[in-house]
Amino acid sequence: MPQPIDFYFDFSSPYSYLASERIEEIAARHGRAVRFRPVLLGVAFRASGQRPLTEVPLKGEYSRRDFARCARFLGVPFRMPDPFPIGTVDAARVVVWLQQVDPARIPDFVHAGYRAFFVHGRNLSDRAVLAEVVQEAGIDAGAAMAAIAGAPVKDALRAQVEQAIARGVFGAPFMMIDGEPFWGHDRFPQIERWLAQGPF
Amino acid sequence: MPQPIDFYFDFSSPYSYLASERIEEIAARHGRAVRFRPVLLGVAFRASGQRPLTEVPLKGEYSRRDFARCARFLGVPFRMPDPFPIGTVDAARVVVWLQQVDPARIPDFVHAGYRAFFVHGRNLSDRAVLAEVVQEAGIDAGAAMAAIAGAPVKDALRAQVEQAIARGVFGAPFMMIDGEPFWGHDRFPQIERWLAQGPF
Repeated sequence: MPQPIDFYFDFSSPYSYLASERIEEIAARHGRAVRFRPVLLGVAFRASGQRPLTEVPLKGEYSRRDFARCARFLGVPFRMPDPFPIGTVDAARVVVWLQQVDPARIPDFVHAGYRAFFVHGRNLSDRAVLAEVVQEAGIDAGAAMAAIAGAPVKDALRAQVEQAIARGVFGAPFMMIDGEPFWGHDRFPQIERWLAQGPF
Repeated sequence: MPQPIDFYFDFSSPYSYLASERIEEIAARHGRAVRFRPVLLGVAFRASGQRPLTEVPLKGEYSRRDFARCARFLGVPFRMPDPFPIGTVDAARVVVWLQQVDPARIPDFVHAGYRAFFVHGRNLSDRAVLAEVVQEAGIDAGAAMAAIAGAPVKDALRAQVEQAIARGVFGAPFMMIDGEPFWGHDRFPQIERWLAQGPF
């Protein structure tokens, strides 16, 4: 059985959202599973001395135009949310909690969270909004919100983010396939070749 | 007659080199010409608060791996040069001088310069090496080296770099097509669609 694709993402990353809408179909075509792994770009950016894309002069303006054009290119619905970027630590903790209690639900929650933010402009950093989205994904919001306030989930996320950075994750989406790192949805053509033919 | 593609590049940019080896074929397939326009990434990075990719922790290591993998993916010969990055102001000035005296030679010189650096590891920031490469491209090296030492060429390059930054160029390769900006060789699929179907 081939290794799953590790898909590192942050709920506030537009390019990760776009990639999240296509990665499972690409993986399935090549007999691979996808493992959604939360990271926190704020932490990764501190480790690598970067800052949020939209705050970089010139590049920030380009990126807003590019997000929307990439979405049209990929055929994925997208509306730039405001406020942006947002803190995503609570949403990431929900993923970590699901790893422990119901991993099969993770994709549903990832897609629900991303679409809430990048299609409907719902602010996932607001705990009330987050609880609603959790519930809409068919997950017990009361249990989720209690769990993410506890030390075990917080510690587990912190450890996972550190582990990701130790693996070289400096941005998102970041896909690790058979130990090979691919950064950005624009590496999909290379990923397709890798999955079809192996290392090149 | 459709507008030419403005291809902004820096001789020290690996991704620009890779793109330079493919852009003319893409453009020709859609009845477009390519206008090679030098920029200086050092100046663009100062304007946008960025620094050389290979100096960013984590991202730098990834990028070195990615340069080589992208080259294999595109089927373009590539060897990471050392030293890297290098100053490219003199090489850029040669392009500006050619704009004035023999624009038809620009593509030959761009390809010769890029291959010298990214295939053969020849340091284009060394004036003796630059003169050799100019000569090998069938251009009068004596005339070129005299011209790039003069104020008219220096001023023209400075003005062009400022103009590029004013147009939003913050990195390279940066392609402007019908006023639409595309950053990176990984936007080739979108460029292909734009050229085939128009705005999307």
